[in-house]
Amino acid sequence: MAKQLLSLSVLTFFLPLHLFAQQMYSPDKGIQLTFSVTAHGTPMYQISYKDKEVIKPSALGFQIKNSGEGLNDGFTIVNTETSAFDETWIPVWGEESRIRNYYNELLVRLEQEASQHIMDIRFRVYNDGVGFRYEFPEQAHLGHFVIEKELTQFVMTGDHTAFWIPGDYDTQEYDYIESRLSDIRGLMANSITSNLSQTSFSPTGVQTSLLLKTDDGLYLNLHEAALIDYSAMHLELDDTNLVFHAWLTPDVEGNGPYMMAPATTPWRTIIISDDARDILASRITYNLNEPSKIEDTSWIKPMKYVGVWWEMITGKSAWAYTDELKAVKLGVTDYSRVKPNGKHGANTAHVKELIDFASEHGFDGVLVEGWNIGWEDWFGHSKDYVFDFLTPYPDFDLKGIEAFAKSKGVEMIMHHETSSSVRNYERHLDQAYQFMKDHGYNAVKSGYVGDILPRGENHYSQWMVNHYQYALEKAADYKIMVNAHEAVRPTGIGRTYPNLIGNESARGTEYQAFGGSKANHVTILPFTRLLGGPMDYTPGIFEMDISKLNPNNTSHVNSTIANQLALYVTMYSPLQMAADLPENYNRFLDAFQFIKDVGLDWEKSVYLEAEPGSYITIARKEKETENWFVGNVNGKQERVSEIHLDFLEKDKTYLATIYSDGPDANYKTNPQSYIIKKKKVTSKTKLKLRSVEGGGYAVSIIAKE
Amino acid sequence: MAKQLLSLSVLTFFLPLHLFAQQMYSPDKGIQLTFSVTAHGTPMYQISYKDKEVIKPSALGFQIKNSGEGLNDGFTIVNTETSAFDETWIPVWGEESRIRNYYNELLVRLEQEASQHIMDIRFRVYNDGVGFRYEFPEQAHLGHFVIEKELTQFVMTGDHTAFWIPGDYDTQEYDYIESRLSDIRGLMANSITSNLSQTSFSPTGVQTSLLLKTDDGLYLNLHEAALIDYSAMHLELDDTNLVFHAWLTPDVEGNGPYMMAPATTPWRTIIISDDARDILASRITYNLNEPSKIEDTSWIKPMKYVGVWWEMITGKSAWAYTDELKAVKLGVTDYSRVKPNGKHGANTAHVKELIDFASEHGFDGVLVEGWNIGWEDWFGHSKDYVFDFLTPYPDFDLKGIEAFAKSKGVEMIMHHETSSSVRNYERHLDQAYQFMKDHGYNAVKSGYVGDILPRGENHYSQWMVNHYQYALEKAADYKIMVNAHEAVRPTGIGRTYPNLIGNESARGTEYQAFGGSKANHVTILPFTRLLGGPMDYTPGIFEMDISKLNPNNTSHVNSTIANQLALYVTMYSPLQMAADLPENYNRFLDAFQFIKDVGLDWEKSVYLEAEPGSYITIARKEKETENWFVGNVNGKQERVSEIHLDFLEKDKTYLATIYSDGPDANYKTNPQSYIIKKKKVTSKTKLKLRSVEGGGYAVSIIAKE
Repeated sequence: MAKQLLSLSVLTFFLPLHLFAQQMYSPDKGIQLTFSVTAHGTPMYQISYKDKEVIKPSALGFQIKNSGEGLNDGFTIVNTETSAFDETWIPVWGEESRIRNYYNELLVRLEQEASQHIMDIRFRVYNDGVGFRYEFPEQAHLGHFVIEKELTQFVMTGDHTAFWIPGDYDTQEYDYIESRLSDIRGLMANSITSNLSQTSFSPTGVQTSLLLKTDDGLYLNLHEAALIDYSAMHLELDDTNLVFHAWLTPDVEGNGPYMMAPATTPWRTIIISDDARDILASRITYNLNEPSKIEDTSWIKPMKYVGVWWEMITGKSAWAYTDELKAVKLGVTDYSRVKPNGKHGANTAHVKELIDFASEHGFDGVLVEGWNIGWEDWFGHSKDYVFDFLTPYPDFDLKGIEAFAKSKGVEMIMHHETSSSVRNYERHLDQAYQFMKDHGYNAVKSGYVGDILPRGENHYSQWMVNHYQYALEKAADYKIMVNAHEAVRPTGIGRTYPNLIGNESARGTEYQAFGGSKANHVTILPFTRLLGGPMDYTPGIFEMDISKLNPNNTSHVNSTIANQLALYVTMYSPLQMAADLPENYNRFLDAFQFIKDVGLDWEKSVYLEAEPGSYITIARKEKETENWFVGNVNGKQERVSEIHLDFLEKDKTYLATIYSDGPDANYKTNPQSYIIKKKKVTSKTKLKLRSVEGGGYAVSIIAKE
Repeated sequence: MAKQLLSLSVLTFFLPLHLFAQQMYSPDKGIQLTFSVTAHGTPMYQISYKDKEVIKPSALGFQIKNSGEGLNDGFTIVNTETSAFDETWIPVWGEESRIRNYYNELLVRLEQEASQHIMDIRFRVYNDGVGFRYEFPEQAHLGHFVIEKELTQFVMTGDHTAFWIPGDYDTQEYDYIESRLSDIRGLMANSITSNLSQTSFSPTGVQTSLLLKTDDGLYLNLHEAALIDYSAMHLELDDTNLVFHAWLTPDVEGNGPYMMAPATTPWRTIIISDDARDILASRITYNLNEPSKIEDTSWIKPMKYVGVWWEMITGKSAWAYTDELKAVKLGVTDYSRVKPNGKHGANTAHVKELIDFASEHGFDGVLVEGWNIGWEDWFGHSKDYVFDFLTPYPDFDLKGIEAFAKSKGVEMIMHHETSSSVRNYERHLDQAYQFMKDHGYNAVKSGYVGDILPRGENHYSQWMVNHYQYALEKAADYKIMVNAHEAVRPTGIGRTYPNLIGNESARGTEYQAFGGSKANHVTILPFTRLLGGPMDYTPGIFEMDISKLNPNNTSHVNSTIANQLALYVTMYSPLQMAADLPENYNRFLDAFQFIKDVGLDWEKSVYLEAEPGSYITIARKEKETENWFVGNVNGKQERVSEIHLDFLEKDKTYLATIYSDGPDANYKTNPQSYIIKKKKVTSKTKLKLRSVEGGGYAVSIIAKE
């Protein structure tokens, strides 16, 4: 680590209300951070970008539980330290094979005279944004304390356009709303669609990561990095003054995180650019996390997979084995006595079909949900001992499937639905992970559907954040990769624990079977949710009319087939599912070819076009080949995308296969219309491709010998 | 199991308000139970003893959460079954080597017409009382349900005298109050003395096991048996009508237990006699539990032990190693850098002294508290990762001590203080138990001091009841004996899991160092707390003036030395501590001899004299020897105890050593005055021994060759 002192011109001056101020620039001088302390001793920060104010002077600090003193005023500066850092690190997986971590740092030590409490604030100023966090060093007069409120502000410079979802302690599975800040309040109630567990807290509360666009064309993203042993942050908008206040997910007793010095908070991040593509390219969230704590990462491998899943989501088949049981007592209920419902998806014959399909088409893995006993009463009962994660249903031949998958060169992916009964999961975790290893499973999809047990806790409180981390670190001990659904949204922790290969933590494809998502949803996620880590979005739906799978489900998938293909490029993930049923792929094998071909792990990524809510076009070069893949998703209206393939190697010819919306494609009425064209391309080629609303295109660019 | 149909004369008749009634007698016909259903379909029971009404007609049933229907009316009888049972079983440890389980049973199946819910009520009528429980068989229309209120009543026949402690969801560590039922309300506020975790709920709420005495000389005990997967029951008194209502410890959201059929509740027990000694002799609580689920019990062994404990309780030494740390981060805090406080009790040299002392005097074990890192901030901070149960303090040479103890033939007893951070304990449980086995520890004292984590849960809620059971069953897997302090009070579960060799769950000797307990406290506990299982009361204090140990502690032990000796007989436990310091025993080695001699495990017990609050005299014959031990504790005023040794074998001569209060003994001013006399005795001998208030006597009766 090349840490060195910076010889910056440090300005120390007196503003009318500020006793102290210090400025710090990004390495390219584009971003200016000003830290100050008011006459009342309140620490403040302010950010400018290319001489435009981006964050107005904003207060920092905390309200402390059961304490006369807060940690928000009465501070004086003890000292400040500046330094610079420039390092390139190699991620285990990612959008590029090398990531530069390049910033200037300002560390301010503050002391509160009355209490003698010491609080440090560490700022890192990058070319593409700012991160800062609070640090509490070991000290004589501050040990344990409970945060009642984090007082961090993000004071807006205007009534920006926001791409937001409702603040909620238990779910992020909402469609994005694009609106002025001042319109959030009026739009909130209708934005809160139903979920099996949800707790909204305010008509102006929204979630991070939050994307904002200013009227003069600046893009801002507010989020956090390295959420460890702390509560997830929401943003509560004071819509009179256009100020976002940090709003921490409380625990069952209404408290924020329990702290003990020495401690640090997560980083609060503000990504800034006048080019939307820079937001997609930002690595601030990962960079603010610690390097990998897993030494041998050779067992962490990106995976493309199919699964017994979409058929249950659509209601074509069932997780449960029987409809007879009102309540299951694991260890007591005798499944050999009950009548099967005949709809159980995870039956041996069907799973073997999936394995065959995976093998035939070169997929790495097969996920099977509903394989283990307990699904008959798995949610809605606040049930404690809901699953044992060990016992298969009578019609799931675990060993036979294990052997068959092995013979076919396919890996099985385990499924651990916890039903949010977290104590129960932790009690079984060691055994369950060991069971996986004993049976050749190296990756697990875990789920946290429904209200949390311990009762009253929320999905995003410190208690639960600690649980997800516990499950992740323990998985690393077993060399198991984790894809946690309904868990807290990722904050770059995949850098430190690269076995976190996926998360849901947003509205995924499943909602296309629950009534549908907005056609432009996927043009927003890469600006928000994906900045913290990959999403197991489960793309690849070819049959948009769900009633074809289940006559009782009239949901429609708001997307074209070309759009679905593009997602394998635009929604970065080292874990990519081909979510639809084999029978639907078999109907469109030419389009399916792209899913088979598309890379999983990338040497580099080029963000060609981007406007949140409207479109995203990304080109990515596969690791260890010379192949490139391009994806375009188009959100709101028909559009022609013009891209220049100048990222290709000079003087080399490639074969491009272009999968694009058909002339008559329409995401509602004609989503299966696509055209496939092949052509030779070079670095000089320019492509002009039309995408319909909810459509897009995908291009594989294969290097010729 | 000899289960046979009874040919009882079953009376089915119509009372004015009852559509149905059925009676059942105890085998000796002394107790009569009447079950009935009212015109509104509410199930009722009523109990008489020797033709006197003991429990007036009392309602049964439940209020169910979020349900229009309760489970308390609208019932009709589907059928009733009667049977008789008589079996003698052999406990692993206990007050006698064979226990008779002898009762008549009435099983009533009820159906609620509107809901089609089926509820069974099973009554067992013993010669010494009644137990009943609710059962929910597997059924079509009832699966999961949440109990909002258990509506079980115990309608009193008069304004009895009760020996009660305040109802509380988190502690039972209260002094008993003896009062009329009608006086409970007025006495409640002053009865609630402080505790690190406490939650009282009503001015007329009291705890089980509750002892009552009627004006016509009947003794009643209300308690429960087999508290498994349910919330602990308190009793809420309607003091206008003198009706006790079951009051279940709620969870964090205010709910009673979460149920799913098939399920049973714990048994509600009413022990009844006109002779107080029969209450002490009752085995109803154990009998209503399941037989041992541990097949090989050879590793469960009663233990007499000393320990590094009283010195910390009195403040003479400390659990913590240093006074420097405001907050300990396990795995981060470096104890090698801190200054020891010089008061740490669990240091190697001192522990070895204790091992030497134990070995010299024939004790089985040595308990050491404060051996592991984390005690600097162990309570009051709602700290999650408070202990790892694995890492010794720098001055505790775990391996050296292990080897030394082994060489001295002494077993070390592990200490697991959880600080009520229950998630943390469960996360470490396997490792901690394995660590014990790896280092020769076969028994653990666990502790649950302070408020529960998960926050908002109570010590006695279903969530926690399930935890204690989990820790107990897992301990059995490791062949570890458990002595759980601050856990829920035992309900005879030691029959099913005989590795539960002790509990605290009441005001133990430690309170003698925290201001003192009432001198007659120990004349009540065997009528209440001890009915559910042994208590690790930690008797054997010889120095009653605590300031002799710690000048800053002016507490006084309200007991004489003779009283302390008697406790080893009167307070039955397979785990008995000699709690005082070796230096205090060395001053009174002649009295200490009784503690060395007294048996631990018993062939039989004879309850010679008993009056709750006043006195208890018990004789017990040691297993595998011909030796008897007698203990008398005297509560309120000086008294002469006259006992006849007719329990001794005829025509055999024994050497009795009698340890009794000295002529000038006084529990306040002269507690160390005792006299020791030796005499030959036979089954014809009568002893007349004087005990002072807070005093007593102990007699060892050794069979001569």
